[in-house]
Amino acid sequence: MIIVMRSDATKEQLGSVIKWIEAQGMRAHLSEGEERTIVGVIGNDRPIDASQVERFDGVERAVPILAPYKLASLDMQPYPTLVPLNGLKVGGKQVALIAGPCSVESREQIMETACAVKIAGATALRGGAFKPRSSPYSFQGMGLAGLELLAEARKETGLPVVTEVMAPEQVGMVAQYADVLQIGARNMQNFNLLNAVGETRHPVLLKRGMMNTMEELLMSAEYILAQGNPNVILCERGIRTFETYTRNTFDVNAIAALKARTHLPVVADPSHATGHWQYVAAASLAAVAAGADGLIIEVHPNPEQAKSDGVQSLKPDRFAELVVRLRLVAEAVDRTL
Amino acid sequence: MIIVMRSDATKEQLGSVIKWIEAQGMRAHLSEGEERTIVGVIGNDRPIDASQVERFDGVERAVPILAPYKLASLDMQPYPTLVPLNGLKVGGKQVALIAGPCSVESREQIMETACAVKIAGATALRGGAFKPRSSPYSFQGMGLAGLELLAEARKETGLPVVTEVMAPEQVGMVAQYADVLQIGARNMQNFNLLNAVGETRHPVLLKRGMMNTMEELLMSAEYILAQGNPNVILCERGIRTFETYTRNTFDVNAIAALKARTHLPVVADPSHATGHWQYVAAASLAAVAAGADGLIIEVHPNPEQAKSDGVQSLKPDRFAELVVRLRLVAEAVDRTL
Amino acid sequence: MIIVMRSDATKEQLGSVIKWIEAQGMRAHLSEGEERTIVGVIGNDRPIDASQVERFDGVERAVPILAPYKLASLDMQPYPTLVPLNGLKVGGKQVALIAGPCSVESREQIMETACAVKIAGATALRGGAFKPRSSPYSFQGMGLAGLELLAEARKETGLPVVTEVMAPEQVGMVAQYADVLQIGARNMQNFNLLNAVGETRHPVLLKRGMMNTMEELLMSAEYILAQGNPNVILCERGIRTFETYTRNTFDVNAIAALKARTHLPVVADPSHATGHWQYVAAASLAAVAAGADGLIIEVHPNPEQAKSDGVQSLKPDRFAELVVRLRLVAEAVDRTL
Amino acid sequence: MIIVMRSDATKEQLGSVIKWIEAQGMRAHLSEGEERTIVGVIGNDRPIDASQVERFDGVERAVPILAPYKLASLDMQPYPTLVPLNGLKVGGKQVALIAGPCSVESREQIMETACAVKIAGATALRGGAFKPRSSPYSFQGMGLAGLELLAEARKETGLPVVTEVMAPEQVGMVAQYADVLQIGARNMQNFNLLNAVGETRHPVLLKRGMMNTMEELLMSAEYILAQGNPNVILCERGIRTFETYTRNTFDVNAIAALKARTHLPVVADPSHATGHWQYVAAASLAAVAAGADGLIIEVHPNPEQAKSDGVQSLKPDRFAELVVRLRLVAEAVDRTL
Repeated sequence: MIIVMRSDATKEQLGSVIKWIEAQGMRAHLSEGEERTIVGVIGNDRPIDASQVERFDGVERAVPILAPYKLASLDMQPYPTLVPLNGLKVGGKQVALIAGPCSVESREQIMETACAVKIAGATALRGGAFKPRSSPYSFQGMGLAGLELLAEARKETGLPVVTEVMAPEQVGMVAQYADVLQIGARNMQNFNLLNAVGETRHPVLLKRGMMNTMEELLMSAEYILAQGNPNVILCERGIRTFETYTRNTFDVNAIAALKARTHLPVVADPSHATGHWQYVAAASLAAVAAGADGLIIEVHPNPEQAKSDGVQSLKPDRFAELVVRLRLVAEAVDRTL
Repeated sequence: MIIVMRSDATKEQLGSVIKWIEAQGMRAHLSEGEERTIVGVIGNDRPIDASQVERFDGVERAVPILAPYKLASLDMQPYPTLVPLNGLKVGGKQVALIAGPCSVESREQIMETACAVKIAGATALRGGAFKPRSSPYSFQGMGLAGLELLAEARKETGLPVVTEVMAPEQVGMVAQYADVLQIGARNMQNFNLLNAVGETRHPVLLKRGMMNTMEELLMSAEYILAQGNPNVILCERGIRTFETYTRNTFDVNAIAALKARTHLPVVADPSHATGHWQYVAAASLAAVAAGADGLIIEVHPNPEQAKSDGVQSLKPDRFAELVVRLRLVAEAVDRTL
Repeated sequence: MIIVMRSDATKEQLGSVIKWIEAQGMRAHLSEGEERTIVGVIGNDRPIDASQVERFDGVERAVPILAPYKLASLDMQPYPTLVPLNGLKVGGKQVALIAGPCSVESREQIMETACAVKIAGATALRGGAFKPRSSPYSFQGMGLAGLELLAEARKETGLPVVTEVMAPEQVGMVAQYADVLQIGARNMQNFNLLNAVGETRHPVLLKRGMMNTMEELLMSAEYILAQGNPNVILCERGIRTFETYTRNTFDVNAIAALKARTHLPVVADPSHATGHWQYVAAASLAAVAAGADGLIIEVHPNPEQAKSDGVQSLKPDRFAELVVRLRLVAEAVDRTL
Repeated sequence: MIIVMRSDATKEQLGSVIKWIEAQGMRAHLSEGEERTIVGVIGNDRPIDASQVERFDGVERAVPILAPYKLASLDMQPYPTLVPLNGLKVGGKQVALIAGPCSVESREQIMETACAVKIAGATALRGGAFKPRSSPYSFQGMGLAGLELLAEARKETGLPVVTEVMAPEQVGMVAQYADVLQIGARNMQNFNLLNAVGETRHPVLLKRGMMNTMEELLMSAEYILAQGNPNVILCERGIRTFETYTRNTFDVNAIAALKARTHLPVVADPSHATGHWQYVAAASLAAVAAGADGLIIEVHPNPEQAKSDGVQSLKPDRFAELVVRLRLVAEAVDRTL
């Protein structure tokens, strides 16, 4: 952290800042410029809040120098984490392809979808049993019965299952059925939940909140890693902006910008990132070209009857066509799929 | 909801849409324009997702007409809800003044602050025992011990206590100590938590998420109301934008815009809405002038030693000065404080 | 500026950075931390682009320390600039009240409005003759004829005229008729236009772009000041966010945050900042409570027939009522109106 | 447009709305729902401002149904516009590759860059002679001398020249030297400038403003088209969001979402869209995979000495490597490059 003093800061004010730094077990390094004096803090100042220092009289602002995450950083581990997913290693050369409906709605629906995406080339099945919905009047998911159907679909197709967990007390139950625990965008900063999945060793698919910076995403991953669970997959799923032609703005930059900072795999969710099935193919191709380690795509046999997210779900035949195109782009960037 | 058909939609496509509307138990009303045909849906279509209809072939888009919230709306209850807070009615003529530290840190700290804000004119005490922090390395709150200190401060000063609850399983415990259950901004769409506080009859202070729309805030209130708890106080605490001179952008418009739609009281949190103690006074005065039913302000006896949010906390003497100015503005807009 | 080196930066890379700093006529100051080495640049580095330095091998990032504006800063001039407006000093104790229609539409319309706002207590008349409209099919303003009508209204009422100028080649003409040259939000970074109004000595009302930071606003003011025109009034008029209940989000924080940095007066435009006449009163009261030096409010005798912005215009009687309330709030915060 | 009446609207209020619609030469179509009455406007209501109608008593809101742009829409021209660029047709099968420095700085610099990008496979040369800079203290471009150097580079390499024009009065001069007139992001809503380039028949590269919606971009294109110039190329260059790891957020969705609405070609600017040279390759590959008709990339022989945007410029050798990878991805999505 460096601390910028105000131009009118007194010696006493500077002294108090230095004294405080030393009281925290760190050293201060002074640098006097023509217009401002700067104090550099020497040591691991991650536990200190920049805002704390800004409260001192005479301080203009404090600028963190070290990234606030540590376990998630490339400084800590300069080689990629490979998260096991039923034989596949997410983060390796092969692009993971997770597909399935937004919500599990019935045995018929999940079985039909699972078989279709398996045949088309998917490497895992997604499907929600617990659904966070902005309206209390919307379908909230099948719950436990949904988890059981997912397990049945896994048995039938061999596809590992990715499904969302919404509350700390559900983690044990969901982990019995799921291969990957998904943390939804709205729960990215539900710290109790992050701690709970951190206590398992299940792979976790951590979605970026629609309102969260990449740094906050890495900090949420840090919560899970700090509990001892190394199997974290980051997921870019679109952020909220002023644009209205799409449901979210797909931050495709996040793939490269995260990989420049972390060893964790990064996948993309083109369904939520666009919100319209017509744009899912373009976003999927873009994600793979940009270096994504995987895709999670919504597929539904009858999107117009879907109980949630129908508008952004692909029909199985369109999904199958897309996989063919994705494979060509994956190869063009020296990956497989 | 109205459904806009594409200019090239066929009769069959239009027919499917109408058939589907009727299958949902509603009626369709056709309106043919020069460039587009529009289908109006007659009936309570709140449970239908606009996106579902958009998935039909030939549909350009669907536009909701009815507000998605019902219990929270002025249509439902055209007079203000008054939430009881230790004799005061939040939402009435008197502006509520909730003040205290970000986190409870020690008996001395909370007692000193409680007494100071009481003397200055506060009507309730705030203080966090469970703290959502973006970093796992930051102070996470005193937990149960913090709740006990808050109860002690209440006993001493008579001030009712407002404190945050972070997880469904904590609700019972926190409710034993708190007069008002606070839902933090990051949990505004933690639906399991909303349901849990909805099952109590405790007043709930529901903070707007930093990147949530007012409509989503009203929908989250709807979750609580739908569980039977009518005592919801909405709180505008700043939203995330591109601006960096302040921690958040205080959406002062939200006060009037929410009150044009809902009967629930609306308070403001100028501390988070600005993120700098220097701007807290201006934001507080603005909030009261704009019609806020209350303020929740961070006050700390030694902000430079605070374990969280020191930079946005007022010292007790500045808070006392501010209360004097707030009272003048409250009176200028025909309120009391 | 401070330059943060990567953890793996070599001595040679550090050497190149230092050499370059010295080649720019500045000095480098080294500070070695445990995880990162930092280079402080000593001297006025405003002309250097931080991004330039970031291009050097071994550099992680560069952080500007000095504010990029100079003439606009309180460091340069620690007392408020008072901009003359027909006897009133904008930036002094009295709150300026600029009112009138969005566009000049006819003699009758502008005369009626001018008289009404004068009687209600306005200190200046606003009205657009040249109108920036997002659609080429919308009314584009009366042009020169509009300017002449504004001059006539000024003669009749004595109110000075505030009107927009859209292009450098119009500045001369508009300056013949206007007392204050308004730069619209969409032109805040039209640098040719800023230079052109900077060459006059006319007061300039510089609106913040809906997509611009306060720092960029100050930099645009700096363009005008650097040309020798000291009479700049800043105007907060709402920024674009994800919220849709209001046309813009009124950044009321900007009033205090700008005044903490600049000596220039700051006024607010509650009409654009809300986009709905129903919310204009609340935003106006909030602005004055927060310390605004003036308000610019749209008033139209027949808003439902207005050729632009009818929805956010007040009728004269509502405006008159608002002025009474504004006066009470102004007095409560020790101002006059 | 449809007009939603308030639940408490009177017959008289409804009558006034209908009367006004008919006075505008359109017809009204009534649809009475259970909770709201809706009025559909039949006819071309593009010149009417939705906000105008919202001003009527009893009106809750007005929702536009027709897209506000017409000439730019696929409804008007269902086949792609091909903009000629020195033999290449932008919008056809071949992906255009525009490359060069941010600013023209010297003969040596522009010649070296032009030759390098030509050899690497670029189809046009970019370079700024007039530079919009947020600070008056930054390099503002070489002006006319820069245009002359660009012309010289074109003569030498045969590459057509893309360069920015900043003010209406510069259009004639710049058009003498440039093959494509670029409108910068900050000028996307400089309507005087749009009209001026609309009066030429020069191809125009219209950059999306950093906080403008796609709809506003299409409306700005409409200004140019409405003046009779059909040669408009849209350019997505990143939008401003809350994210800070990148300079802008590349809205890769815009490529598909624009192409679903307009016949105009869409290119991408990965240099501004990321702001860091390290991420330019990923964004470029993503853009081509998503269907972009071209790329405009900053290349500089000595980025660390660049007078602007060095941090986001590629060195010629990296650019050459990127072209090889881009060609593979282009072929994978059935394009050439």
